[in-house]
Amino acid sequence: MIKKLDHIGIAVKDMENGLNRWKALLNAADADIEEIPERGVRAAHLDIPGGGSVELVEPLTPDSPVAKFLETRGEGIHHVCFEVKDIEAAIKGLKENGVRFITEGPVCGAGGSRIIFAHPRDMGGVLVELKEKAKEISLRPE
Amino acid sequence: MIKKLDHIGIAVKDMENGLNRWKALLNAADADIEEIPERGVRAAHLDIPGGGSVELVEPLTPDSPVAKFLETRGEGIHHVCFEVKDIEAAIKGLKENGVRFITEGPVCGAGGSRIIFAHPRDMGGVLVELKEKAKEISLRPE
Repeated sequence: MIKKLDHIGIAVKDMENGLNRWKALLNAADADIEEIPERGVRAAHLDIPGGGSVELVEPLTPDSPVAKFLETRGEGIHHVCFEVKDIEAAIKGLKENGVRFITEGPVCGAGGSRIIFAHPRDMGGVLVELKEKAKEISLRPE
Repeated sequence: MIKKLDHIGIAVKDMENGLNRWKALLNAADADIEEIPERGVRAAHLDIPGGGSVELVEPLTPDSPVAKFLETRGEGIHHVCFEVKDIEAAIKGLKENGVRFITEGPVCGAGGSRIIFAHPRDMGGVLVELKEKAKEISLRPE
């Protein structure tokens, strides 16, 4: 059901500080910071050599879920995201194993992807994100 | 400095429960459970399709660091491990960036590897493990 690890999400209080630290560790190039108001965060991705990335997330508003995470748990790993081929099939499979989800169905993620978060209570305290990448549209004339 | 993501460490209260859940998500085969008394844990690795693995860790004793993690934070992501080519060079590079480590130098990990944990206070709340794999010994006669 899972194709690969997509990213590890890390909650930071200060994006610039977080970027400096993780760029040094991963020897990564500068990253664009993207605002995602739907999730109440600013996010930046740094590639991990060999595959996958680290996503730093900083809350945009004090009532966003990431702000609440920082308040109760402090900075640290917030979620882990796996890329799936077929998000509906993955959701169905996990629901059959008793896993609940935070939203009714997939919602829009970055770059036209569709994402959903499983409930950490059903995944041993881990916030698991599933992501189906946007379908590539063929521009070849018929 | 980093070659690739090696594994994501997840603290579980009950190894069998954790294995069932993560095997279902990752569609993984059965995993051997290994006792690591030096770290005070039982550990099992499940491959992530596409690379890397999930390491489930369950405390062996109530005074192990993982038992304390479970007590204060509950089940969830405990650490993230990156494979490095040269652990001494990686430690030196991070120390120059002000990162402190939990032990003076690398200690023995599974399978003859050498590992070290950076201090989460210096890595934005994330417990980062560095791992240098055992050197392959050539058995070819000279």
